[in-house]
Amino acid sequence: MDRKTFLGTTALASVGLFSHSISLPVFSKKNKINIGLIGVGARGQSHLDELCKRDDVEIIALADPDSDWAIPSSLEILKRRSRKEPQIFGKDDNDYLRMLEMKEIHAVIISTPWEWHVKQGIAALEAGKKVGMEVAGAISIQECWDIVHAVERTGTPLMFLENVCYRRDVMAVMNMAKRGVFGELLHLQGGYQHDLRAVKLNDGKSPYGKGVEFGDNGFSEAKWRTPHSVNRNGELYPTHGLGPIAMMTDINRGNRLVSLSSVATKSRGLHKYIVDNGGAQHKNAAVDFKLGDIVTTLLTTANGETMMLSHDTSSPRPYSLNFRIQGTHGLWMDDLQQIHIEGKTKPHVWETDQTWMETYDHPLWKKYSAEAKNAGHGGMDFFVLNAFVECCKNNEEFPLDVYDMATWSVITPLSETSVKEGGSKQDIPDFTQGKWSSRKNTFNHRADY
Amino acid sequence: MDRKTFLGTTALASVGLFSHSISLPVFSKKNKINIGLIGVGARGQSHLDELCKRDDVEIIALADPDSDWAIPSSLEILKRRSRKEPQIFGKDDNDYLRMLEMKEIHAVIISTPWEWHVKQGIAALEAGKKVGMEVAGAISIQECWDIVHAVERTGTPLMFLENVCYRRDVMAVMNMAKRGVFGELLHLQGGYQHDLRAVKLNDGKSPYGKGVEFGDNGFSEAKWRTPHSVNRNGELYPTHGLGPIAMMTDINRGNRLVSLSSVATKSRGLHKYIVDNGGAQHKNAAVDFKLGDIVTTLLTTANGETMMLSHDTSSPRPYSLNFRIQGTHGLWMDDLQQIHIEGKTKPHVWETDQTWMETYDHPLWKKYSAEAKNAGHGGMDFFVLNAFVECCKNNEEFPLDVYDMATWSVITPLSETSVKEGGSKQDIPDFTQGKWSSRKNTFNHRADY
Repeated sequence: MDRKTFLGTTALASVGLFSHSISLPVFSKKNKINIGLIGVGARGQSHLDELCKRDDVEIIALADPDSDWAIPSSLEILKRRSRKEPQIFGKDDNDYLRMLEMKEIHAVIISTPWEWHVKQGIAALEAGKKVGMEVAGAISIQECWDIVHAVERTGTPLMFLENVCYRRDVMAVMNMAKRGVFGELLHLQGGYQHDLRAVKLNDGKSPYGKGVEFGDNGFSEAKWRTPHSVNRNGELYPTHGLGPIAMMTDINRGNRLVSLSSVATKSRGLHKYIVDNGGAQHKNAAVDFKLGDIVTTLLTTANGETMMLSHDTSSPRPYSLNFRIQGTHGLWMDDLQQIHIEGKTKPHVWETDQTWMETYDHPLWKKYSAEAKNAGHGGMDFFVLNAFVECCKNNEEFPLDVYDMATWSVITPLSETSVKEGGSKQDIPDFTQGKWSSRKNTFNHRADY
Repeated sequence: MDRKTFLGTTALASVGLFSHSISLPVFSKKNKINIGLIGVGARGQSHLDELCKRDDVEIIALADPDSDWAIPSSLEILKRRSRKEPQIFGKDDNDYLRMLEMKEIHAVIISTPWEWHVKQGIAALEAGKKVGMEVAGAISIQECWDIVHAVERTGTPLMFLENVCYRRDVMAVMNMAKRGVFGELLHLQGGYQHDLRAVKLNDGKSPYGKGVEFGDNGFSEAKWRTPHSVNRNGELYPTHGLGPIAMMTDINRGNRLVSLSSVATKSRGLHKYIVDNGGAQHKNAAVDFKLGDIVTTLLTTANGETMMLSHDTSSPRPYSLNFRIQGTHGLWMDDLQQIHIEGKTKPHVWETDQTWMETYDHPLWKKYSAEAKNAGHGGMDFFVLNAFVECCKNNEEFPLDVYDMATWSVITPLSETSVKEGGSKQDIPDFTQGKWSSRKNTFNHRADY
C-alpha cells in the first residue's frame, strides 16, 4: 500500500468530487434518525452526499437562503441518490428557525458561514435538536461561552465536526502516541497551510479562481470567508491543525490549553493576487486586507507540552497541515512523511513512515476503509459523520464535543488580540470549569465508530 | 553533483575530523597577520587546524588553562602542520590577559566557554586586538551592551564567527532571496535541533557519550555547556538558526528585530538519558535540569516579517537547523530539501531544490570550493575564518559584527524571561541605537571573501 493509497484521495480534492457509487454500506437501522441540514453550500452538499450513502439516515429538511445554487444543487444530489425530496426552508436567512420547529427532526448539521454557527447552534439546541457543528466554530470569546452554556442549559449535546481528527495518518499517529511510541509527548505542531487565494477570490460564478471578486460579488467561500481576511488578523482557522494534536494530548480530558501568543507577517498575498490577476486598476486592488499572510501561534498546556500552529492561506505553497508530533522517544513529521524513534530506527536519521502507518493503522480505519473509500477529504468525512450519526442513534456522548469546539475556536479571538499587541501572552479560558481534570479521553480507544 | 557533495561533509562531523591534507591555498601574504587563540578546546583546535592551512597567518600564542588536553593537542596540530611553536599562556584562567600584552598579536579568536566570551572580548578590544568571537556570544542583556560599548569606545572591530551564515545551501538560498526568487520575504524559520545528549553527558575522558558525567566530572562541552541546561530555561543557542535568516532579512541593516516570545516544554530528555545509561541510582539522576527539552521562539521585525526558532537538543532526533524561507512567491524548506516558487515550479507541489542550489550557488563558494573542501562543518568554517582573516589583513569592516553578536545573543536572556512568564512578549533592544536604518547589507554581494 503506497502513501497515496493509504491516505485515499488527496485532501485538496473535495469540492465537487462526490462519488457516484451507489453501493450502500450496512448500518444498523435501529433508531434510524432524521436529519435537517442548515447550510447546503459546498460543505453542506458534501455532507449531504455522504449522508445519502447511509440507510440509517433520512434527510428530511434543508435550510439555506440560496435558491440559485445551494438548494437546486442539493436537490440534484438527493435525486441522484434516489432520495425523497426534503422540506426546503429558504425564504430568508432566518428560515432555519421554522425548520427547527419540525418535531420529526432528531439532529441538525450546521455548515453555514462562520458568523452564523453559534447563533444557529443555540437555536437548534434550544429546540432539542442534537447538533453537528462544522468548523470554524465560534468567532468571539463570548460566543464560545454562549454555546457551552447552551449545551449545559439544554442538556442537548453538540458534536464538533473536526474531520482531520479522523485522517488516516493522523489516527495512526494518535494510535502510536497512545501506545507510547513517542514516549512522553513534548512538542506538537499543526496548522492550516493551504493556498486559498483562488478560493477567496473567484469570478462570482464558480468556486475556484477565474476572477478576483469576493463578498457580494464572490461565489461560495469568496462570499463569506474573504471578508474575514479583510477585517481580522489572527489564527482564523485553527481547528484542522489543533484538533488532532489536542486529542493526542488529552486537552479537556486530563490536560488543558493554558496560554497562547501569536504573531503575523505583513499582508501581501491577496492584494498581489488581485493585482496579478485583475490588474492594479481593479476596485479590489484598493482593499486593505488586515490578515497577515502567515500567522504563527505558540500554545502551552497544563501538562507541560508546547504546540505551534501555522495559518498560511494567502501565499503560493503546497498544501500541508504541518503536523509534527514529538516526545521523549522521537518524532514524526507530516511534511517529511518520516519518523525517528530511538532504539527502533537508526540513530540520527529519518525512516520513511510507511511501515509504521500500516502497523498502527487505526482499528476504525481497518473496519471502515471500504465505506470511507470515496468520502470527502480522503475518507475522513465518512468517519466524522459516522461518529455523529451513530452517537445520535445510540444516544451516546460525542467524541468531540462543545468543550472542544469552544477551546479550539477561542484561539481565533485570542490570537487576534495577541497579534494586535505584537505577540502578547493571552490566557485561554477553561470552558470545562474544572471538569477537564476528571474527563476521560476515549477517542483513540473506540473501535466501533 | 548530489546533495551530499554539494553540502560537503556532514554538518555533524566536526570534532576530531581534521584534514591531513597539506596543500596550501594561495592567499595574499601582504599584511600577513599574527593571531593568538584564546581557548583551544574542541572548537579552538578546529580553528587552529584551519588557520594552519593558510600562509598569510602566523599563530603566535595560545591561551588555555587546560594543560592536560587542550594545549598538548593544539601543539600536536601545529607540529603536524609544520608550524612554529607559539607562546603558551596556561598558568590559570586569566593568563590570556598576559597574552593580550603581546604587541605582535594583531587579532585574537575566542573559543572559550560562553560565560567567558564577553569578558575576554572586552579585554582584547581594549588591548587593541581585533576579535573573532565564537558563538554563543553573550549571556545577559548587560553583556550585550557591554561588548557593543567596548567596540564603540575602542574603535577596534569584532567579527561574530557565526559559521552557518556560510553554509553552502544557506548562501545559495540567501542568494535567491536577494535576487528576488522568493518575492518579498514574509516568514523565516531556523533553529538548533541537534541531539546533544551524548555531548552534554560523557565519561569525563572523551567528548561523546560513554558515560553520564558533566560539570567538573565531564569532558569538553559536558564540562561547561551542560551547567547551562541545569540552570537556565530558554533559547540557549539561537545564532545558528537566527544568523542566516537575520542576514537574509537585513537585520541591523535596514531592518531590526522588534520583539519575541518563547515557550518551553517540560524537561525530560537529559534526566531520562542519565537514568537509561547510568541507572536511577547515579548521582546525576537527582539533578533537576531547568532547560525545557524544546524551546520555541517567535520573533517580529520592523519590516513586518516573522521568524520562528526551535531549540531542541535533549531528545532523540535527526540533526536539522529547521530552515524555512518563505516569501510572496514561494518557499524553501531545509528538512524537505524542496522548493516551491509560483510560476517556476508546478502549482501546489514541491520540487527538489538541487537544480536551484546549483543555479544560485554563491560566488564565494564557486571561488573557494577547493579550499573549503576539507574544512570543518561541511566547509563553512573555512569561509567564516577566511572573511575574518582577509578583513583583518585589509583593515575592512567585518561582514558580521558586534551589533549582530549583541542582537542575536540577546535572544537568550530575553527568552528566559519570556519562558518564565509563560510566553510573555519581550522587546528586543536596538543595539545600533538607530544606525540600523542606514547601515547597508553587503553580506550577499561580496564575491571576494
